[in-house]
Order: sequence, then structure tokens, then C-alpha cells
Amino acid sequence: MVANGPTIALDAMGGDKAPEIVIRGAAIALERFPDVRFLVFGAGETLTKLVAKDKVLSEAVELREASSVISADAKPSQALRNGKGSSMWSALEAVKQGEAQAAVSAGNTGALMAISKFLLRTPTGIDRPAMASILPTSKGETVMLDLGANLECDADNLFQFAILGALFARASLAIETPTVGLLNVGAEELKGSDQIKTAAAMLRNLEGQLPLKFEGFIEGDDIISGKVDVVVTDGFSGNVALKTAEGTARLFGHFMRRTFRSSPMAAIGYLFARSALKRLRNHLDPRKYNGAVFLGLNGIAVKSHGGSDAFGFANAVGVAVDMSRYGFLGSVRAEFERLQTGELRSGSESL
Amino acid sequence: MVANGPTIALDAMGGDKAPEIVIRGAAIALERFPDVRFLVFGAGETLTKLVAKDKVLSEAVELREASSVISADAKPSQALRNGKGSSMWSALEAVKQGEAQAAVSAGNTGALMAISKFLLRTPTGIDRPAMASILPTSKGETVMLDLGANLECDADNLFQFAILGALFARASLAIETPTVGLLNVGAEELKGSDQIKTAAAMLRNLEGQLPLKFEGFIEGDDIISGKVDVVVTDGFSGNVALKTAEGTARLFGHFMRRTFRSSPMAAIGYLFARSALKRLRNHLDPRKYNGAVFLGLNGIAVKSHGGSDAFGFANAVGVAVDMSRYGFLGSVRAEFERLQTGELRSGSESL
Repeated sequence: MVANGPTIALDAMGGDKAPEIVIRGAAIALERFPDVRFLVFGAGETLTKLVAKDKVLSEAVELREASSVISADAKPSQALRNGKGSSMWSALEAVKQGEAQAAVSAGNTGALMAISKFLLRTPTGIDRPAMASILPTSKGETVMLDLGANLECDADNLFQFAILGALFARASLAIETPTVGLLNVGAEELKGSDQIKTAAAMLRNLEGQLPLKFEGFIEGDDIISGKVDVVVTDGFSGNVALKTAEGTARLFGHFMRRTFRSSPMAAIGYLFARSALKRLRNHLDPRKYNGAVFLGLNGIAVKSHGGSDAFGFANAVGVAVDMSRYGFLGSVRAEFERLQTGELRSGSESL
Repeated sequence: MVANGPTIALDAMGGDKAPEIVIRGAAIALERFPDVRFLVFGAGETLTKLVAKDKVLSEAVELREASSVISADAKPSQALRNGKGSSMWSALEAVKQGEAQAAVSAGNTGALMAISKFLLRTPTGIDRPAMASILPTSKGETVMLDLGANLECDADNLFQFAILGALFARASLAIETPTVGLLNVGAEELKGSDQIKTAAAMLRNLEGQLPLKFEGFIEGDDIISGKVDVVVTDGFSGNVALKTAEGTARLFGHFMRRTFRSSPMAAIGYLFARSALKRLRNHLDPRKYNGAVFLGLNGIAVKSHGGSDAFGFANAVGVAVDMSRYGFLGSVRAEFERLQTGELRSGSESL
């Protein structure tokens, strides 16, 4: 095995097309990051053969037996009760034990959230973890959180998510001081619920002392326009916004296909514009944005879409590698310790 | 004046391009609905001349002096205190007095909401009015509410919004028994906040006795796919979802333009596909969906987008005409009276 790179624990049995896409995804990721090694949790002849048949991959992989699988429809509480020893649990356990720097699973989202919370816990100063993802925008890419881990959030949650999201943007988008916006129903200071207004005041009070630049309130259309690097909201609105954007994008794809088939002239037009349209499709390829991350835990857990292919799974692994390499957890701990010790507050008082 | 059609009160001074777009919009609406008459509230020579110069329109219009205008940045509380006598207030007052069946304004949204609530009040059985609009979907059109009038909603609010939305879909989309979905973070019965789960139970308990078919929970991507005729949610999520969909659609327009300009081949492709693309743009034309409605008041108040042109304003007038003609208010009162008297409940008990 090549040394020095991070070790990523893989749940080989999670997702619609496991273990094939997990192993082929790991192989693609290995081409990009040759120094990464994998701890692969799962069982069965298919898995063993898939690994064995790729010489390069097999040298980077350590296969570990995990005979049970958490089903896609298991409730989080069931997964917590009966999930021990499963491929997902074992992958997260490896992160907890320090054997791996991050875990990636395409399995049951609720179960992954519950088990990672249970095993990895939140560091001091963080009340609840949040789910974050990267979206394509007209300017580039934007981080959004929470995407559904916490349906209701208080001001402290939103404040903490802002810091977590900024540190994630730094690690994954390489932006030193990301801009952060709080999602609201209007950009005016008076709008919104009490918790949003309080969170905004907290972020403004620490202006210049946090690893971010707070841009105030933003609205739904600012998410996709790329107005800020990090969009912070509660899990209900974040989930709704993400899925609405995905649904609208799909509708456009559907309309475009129908339009180019609607007349012979349009079909000829498509032939001419094909390579340009292909580049656009490539830019918006949802597989490139695969990999939702649970932020705010003592360990890195990445969720790949359950229906993802190998290319998409490799991108989820890429997110885990970026976060490990950047030292995301260390920067989170340092930032929240500073907040805890009141270093920031006393700093601002002495001004 | 031609008799029998509904009378619509117009705030001639609201919106970025008032009074031009209001009067030209009324003229366009009059071509579509020749039996409608207008009570126009405003002042100034421009307004008088605009009306006078259109012979057909001037016969359908009664101009009434309203010298003050509520500014675009006035707070709702200021508008309530100082707005009396303004063009917006007077238009709503005409609805209250029964002189007009509906009012249309392109002015300040918060002010319109506050003044219409104050003047028109909610009928018995309705706790709070909601803001609704029609959206284009892949199947046709869908009603969504609340779009921002109530940032937080309890189960009773959501239940009432479902009925109001269904009656609005009946009036505006001509669907006899509209399907209704509650926006949530998953389609499973166990997901979501308590208020959403309770609202779902209330709607299920009265299955078959309401003017709608309840389809359970839906997710963000179901809004634009047109899975249901009516999407019910709280004002925060509804506002975020609407603006996210608008923003994503705009992003696609931007990307398409860039794509067709990206190479000579693509530009040729555009020339061939142009008329098909124009039909698509026409189908998605946001002006066709202009006109947000305040549902749940003793009167009809329609909000046109402030930046709308005459074509868009005419569509907002069209929404008001549809609702007046259908007898929307009567059906709302009848439905909520049935609920109040317990007719429905005793009906279900006797089963």
C-alpha cells in the first residue's frame, strides 16, 4: 500500500447497485487520488471478486467482513438497535477508532445520520450536526446546509451551521473566507422568524472574527444565482429548496428534449448545437455534486446518493478525501474551542 | 358600460411602471373579458389621458380620485396607519363596500396583505389568509400556498389552506376535485413536524367529504413535476420553494443563451431550433403566471408583480375575473360553514 494518503472506510453494501458501484467508484477515485487507501466493509463472493479483479485497487484495499446490511427502508431507531456489525456501522466504527479518516456510504440516509451521531458524537460547542452538499450555480459552486437533518432549528443551530458550512467550503471549494447568507423570505433586516433574526445578529456581532464573511439574508433565487458561497437554513427549508431546484432542473431537461423533438427544424438545430449542449449537460451533471456530508461530528461521514453510479460514488469519495486532507475536523474543533473559551467575545470587548 | 360582468377595482398607482402598465393591462384584459368593468383609483394627468385615449376602455372604466400612493418600501404597519385614502386602500375599500368583486394591485405586497386583512377580514372558520399562485409544471399548472403571508403555520392553518387552495384551483384551473399534497421532507407518513402530521391526519379523516382529494406528503421535486394540483405548505417554505424554482429556471435560461453563443455551430443550431425554443419560452413565460391571490378573506385581492408589464398585469386581472365569476367567495363560505356546524363530522360519525 502507498503511504501518507488518508484512509477512507467504505460501506460496500449500501445503495441500489452495491457492491458494484462502490468498488468501481473506489477504483475511479484511486486514479484521482493514488495515495488513498480504503477499508472496505461487506461480504459475499461478488465483492471479493470485484476487488480481486482490479490489481491496482486490490493493493489499496483492505477487505473486512461485515455480514449484515441495513435495509433501505429501516427506520433510524431500528438501525441503531440492530445495525451493529453491519457494513455501514462497521465503516463508521472504523472512523471512530481512528483507523479511517472518513466513511462513505450510499445506504439508508436516516440510518447513516443516526449511527454516525451515536458513534461519532458532536464536539464541544456544537449542539447538532447538519447535512451539507455542494450545488452548481451560475457563478460556480455553493454549499447549502442543513438539508434535512434538523427540521426545526434555533438561532444557535443556525449560527453553528454557518461556521461549519464556511469551514466545509474552505475544505471542498478552496475558498479562504467564504461568504455566508441566511435563507429568508426577504433581504430586509426586519423580515423572518425570531430565530433567523437572532442568528443574523450573532453572526454580525462577531464580524471579522469568524472564518467567514456574513452577507445577511438571501432569498430562494439567490441560492442558484450563486450570490453567496454558503447558504444556511433549517433542514426543512433546505430540503425543500434542494429538491425544488433539482425538480426544476429536471423539468427543463424534459422540456428541452421535447422542444428539440418537436419539429424537423428543431431536430436539425439540435444536431448543430449538440456538442455545446453536451458541455452544458456535463457542467450540470448531478453525479458531479454527489456526496452529502454530515458536518459537526467527531469524524467525517459522507452520504452518496443511493441510486448513484460509480462516477457519482467516486465524487462522494472525493469529498471525503478533500475534507480529510484539509484537516476539516481540526479546524472545526479549533474554531468552536475559541468560541467556547470566550476568546472571541473578550476579543471583541477589548476593541 | 356593458352590464353583467364583474367589476374589478384597480390600484392605478402601484408598481414600478404605474399607471401605464395598469391601464394598458386593463385594456388587454378587456379584450379577453368584454363584460368586465373597472373602478380605477389614482390621480394625475398621465392617468386621465391614458384612459381617455382608449375609447373602448374609457367606456368600461370609472375613474376615482385617490391622491396618495403607498410607497414600495413602506412597512405594513405604516401602510395601515397612514394608507387610508391611497389608491391601494381605496381599491380594497371598494371591494369591502361591494362596489367591486375584486381588487388588483401591483404595489407593496406587505401593505396589500395588511390592508386587505384589516378591511376584508377572514370569514368564520378561517384563522389566517394565505397567499397563493399558479405555477407551470411538466403536466400543466399547479397552485401553491402559502407563499409568505404566514412564516409559521399550525395544523389548523395548513388544513384550512388545503381547502382554500382546492377551491382556488377549481375556480382558476377548472378542476372539479383537485388533488392536494402537503409539502414535506419525505413521502413516508412518519416524516415531518408535528403540525404537518396532524394536518395530514385531519385531511385524511375527512376523506371524501372535502372539495379535494388528499394525496399525502410530497417533496420539493414534486412541485414542478405537477404531481398534485395544489401544494400546501407554510409561508417560509412556500416562499423559498417558489423563489428557488424561479431562480433555477432563470439559471437555465442563462445557460441556454450562453450555450447557443458558445460556438458558430451552436449558433446555427439555435437558428434552426428557434421557433421551437420560442414556443417553450412562451409556455414558461412568467407573465402568464402573474397574479398572487390572498385567499381566506371576505373579498378577493390579487397582487401583480411590481415589475410586471401590461401583459402580466392583464393576467393578474384575469385571475380576479375567474375568481369573481366562479363565485369563489361563496364556495369558501359554504365549505367553512359546513365544517363549523360539524355537519361533516356528524356525517362521518354516522357512517
